[in-house]
Amino acid sequence: MPHTVEIYSLPDCPHCKNVKSFFAKHNIEYTNYDVSDSANAKKMIEISGQRGVPVIIIDGKEIVIGDDLMKLQILLLGDEPAAEAPITADHELVIIGAGAAGLPAALYAGRKELDTLVIGGAIGGMVNQSKTVENYPGIPDVPGDVLMGKLAEHAKSTGVEFLEDVGTSIVRKGGVFEIETLNGHKVTAKAVIAATGRIPRFSGAKGETDFFGKGVAVCTTCDGPLYKGKSVAVIGGGNTGLDMALELADIASEVHVIVRSKVRGDEILLNRLKTKSNVVFHTGYEIEEIYGGQFVEGIALKKLGGGITKLFKSGIEKIPVEGVFLGIGLNPNTMMFEGLVEMNAEKEIIVNENCETNVPGFFAAGDSTSIKAKQIASSVGEGVKALLSAYAYLKK
Amino acid sequence: MPHTVEIYSLPDCPHCKNVKSFFAKHNIEYTNYDVSDSANAKKMIEISGQRGVPVIIIDGKEIVIGDDLMKLQILLLGDEPAAEAPITADHELVIIGAGAAGLPAALYAGRKELDTLVIGGAIGGMVNQSKTVENYPGIPDVPGDVLMGKLAEHAKSTGVEFLEDVGTSIVRKGGVFEIETLNGHKVTAKAVIAATGRIPRFSGAKGETDFFGKGVAVCTTCDGPLYKGKSVAVIGGGNTGLDMALELADIASEVHVIVRSKVRGDEILLNRLKTKSNVVFHTGYEIEEIYGGQFVEGIALKKLGGGITKLFKSGIEKIPVEGVFLGIGLNPNTMMFEGLVEMNAEKEIIVNENCETNVPGFFAAGDSTSIKAKQIASSVGEGVKALLSAYAYLKK
Repeated sequence: MPHTVEIYSLPDCPHCKNVKSFFAKHNIEYTNYDVSDSANAKKMIEISGQRGVPVIIIDGKEIVIGDDLMKLQILLLGDEPAAEAPITADHELVIIGAGAAGLPAALYAGRKELDTLVIGGAIGGMVNQSKTVENYPGIPDVPGDVLMGKLAEHAKSTGVEFLEDVGTSIVRKGGVFEIETLNGHKVTAKAVIAATGRIPRFSGAKGETDFFGKGVAVCTTCDGPLYKGKSVAVIGGGNTGLDMALELADIASEVHVIVRSKVRGDEILLNRLKTKSNVVFHTGYEIEEIYGGQFVEGIALKKLGGGITKLFKSGIEKIPVEGVFLGIGLNPNTMMFEGLVEMNAEKEIIVNENCETNVPGFFAAGDSTSIKAKQIASSVGEGVKALLSAYAYLKK
Repeated sequence: MPHTVEIYSLPDCPHCKNVKSFFAKHNIEYTNYDVSDSANAKKMIEISGQRGVPVIIIDGKEIVIGDDLMKLQILLLGDEPAAEAPITADHELVIIGAGAAGLPAALYAGRKELDTLVIGGAIGGMVNQSKTVENYPGIPDVPGDVLMGKLAEHAKSTGVEFLEDVGTSIVRKGGVFEIETLNGHKVTAKAVIAATGRIPRFSGAKGETDFFGKGVAVCTTCDGPLYKGKSVAVIGGGNTGLDMALELADIASEVHVIVRSKVRGDEILLNRLKTKSNVVFHTGYEIEEIYGGQFVEGIALKKLGGGITKLFKSGIEKIPVEGVFLGIGLNPNTMMFEGLVEMNAEKEIIVNENCETNVPGFFAAGDSTSIKAKQIASSVGEGVKALLSAYAYLKK
């Protein structure tokens, strides 16, 4: 008997799209509740205790949070065999990561007709979560997932092979790399490009992990609309934080931007933010605690250094907010490469100007590397450079 | 009294577009002869002794070859003052070069609201000469000048200032750079990004310079159509040479590709070339001489190493061709920076992974640098990286 499936989602949220693609692939019928409608949002929060999309409810009782496709597979297709049997294959090149660096590397690998496998858990990577990308040269003002869709389509047009999966381990034996994935696939490669990007950074504030999904969020595109007319905080004054604040300024009643030292984001974003009357900057503060009951109710800030703002007379003050968006940046997603390749103190893979590492045959590109620029365009360039270095290595 | 102006041109040739833009800017009326029409081509060659567009004829007697806008300015607007008086200005940043590296640097400079001047003789640079660019991630199959037009428009949308001129000298005094241009402008900058790209390389063969414009050419988009139904040679087996051969295969009767050691271009291009029955590869040969009378009549090849092909029984043989396209690559366009910054033996500016050079405040990006990849996408990425390094330098 088929299951009853309900999903609470937002139209633009990439995680929601992932789940809906999964449903479509397996011919699973479902009822969609768009939480842009506040009645739906209220109902979702009541049922799930969750302030973040997607929430999936199976047979009125089992609740799945986020795009946990593995859990959905077990719950909905439990008796079916896994869609793909584990593969074992030898390739010339494996590219791990299918974002802004991995996809252009794949495009060039395809054009060079290398025997290549691209392993990527989320095709498009972190860029998918950007509502609008304004600074990819030649394609102004494009939604992040649309831009990455173009890059993916371009790469796939060369016939290069993709595996939607996540690399979990890698070892080098006799000059050959052995890679294992989350779904149990095992592949080898003569050369590897690491393009695993970054993952959101946590501030370490008290309450942060407890309230994750209950007011604490990392994706304004996904969860922003749930804070319509509410007061929210954004932590971070780099481009990530400013982008988040800009997006939330048109949704929330008040946006408090908490910045430790000074705003480091682009002037163009800062100037746009200055026109928003509901945005308040708190510079020179760090977040001490995120507090609340079932959901976030506010943040406590701690003053760093001298100076008193109009809001804060003492060292620590509280601001009532219902949402806290973490825009403090990202950590390199390089855990699987620890022990294999040289990294700096931030766990970034150290590369030279041609994307070579200290391990022969192992190249790296994009936000997981020691390159200072963390931009879509620079990651694209690094992906191309890494591939050309890998190609030279394979053909020598 | 207005002059009588005639131009022999091709619709896709960027140099022809430059001249026509000049005419439009100064309201100069002219008669256009499209040399895709072989009668026009024949007439142009008769009048000018020139096998390459554009050819401009003023009052039926003065002949101007190529997009020599300065000569056209003198001949057509002789009594007028120069369009712009020399400027003297101080900037935070000067970007020298407006191609695949310079334009993205300008985009980011504009977004960072740096006081920036971009100096570029040809907005778009060498990419303008590519008939089709297939490997810029996200924009497949786009004419080179259209792609560069998108990048230029994107950069200009930020309000950054452009000067259509060529940098000729640069010195550093007391931490400030002083730059002079071909048109006599003098500007200073606290930081400089060199993005001057590359210029076509000559093979050094006897006759090569004598026959330049008389059968020897560097741009298939510009001059290819003049060799309809004729036999031509392409020198070089990298991507430049293969692209040229592909384009010429559909125009010329026979295309002889001369490669010294082995084909280094992308397999995708090579495989496409293999389907063309009128393309012959001569691998292991170098060009000894380009010979002819008024125009090129053939090439003499010298065998390198062992092996005899079906065409060549002896060490040197002649192939009759009317056109010789130089696709052997490009040299860095870095003459103005000699003595200022450290370069390698190939006269490429040595940069590290963040586009820094050995001179504080002086950054470099793209094909003029020591980075191995010479691709549009990698130059775009390097331009972004150089700008972020320059920004960090200026703000520290």
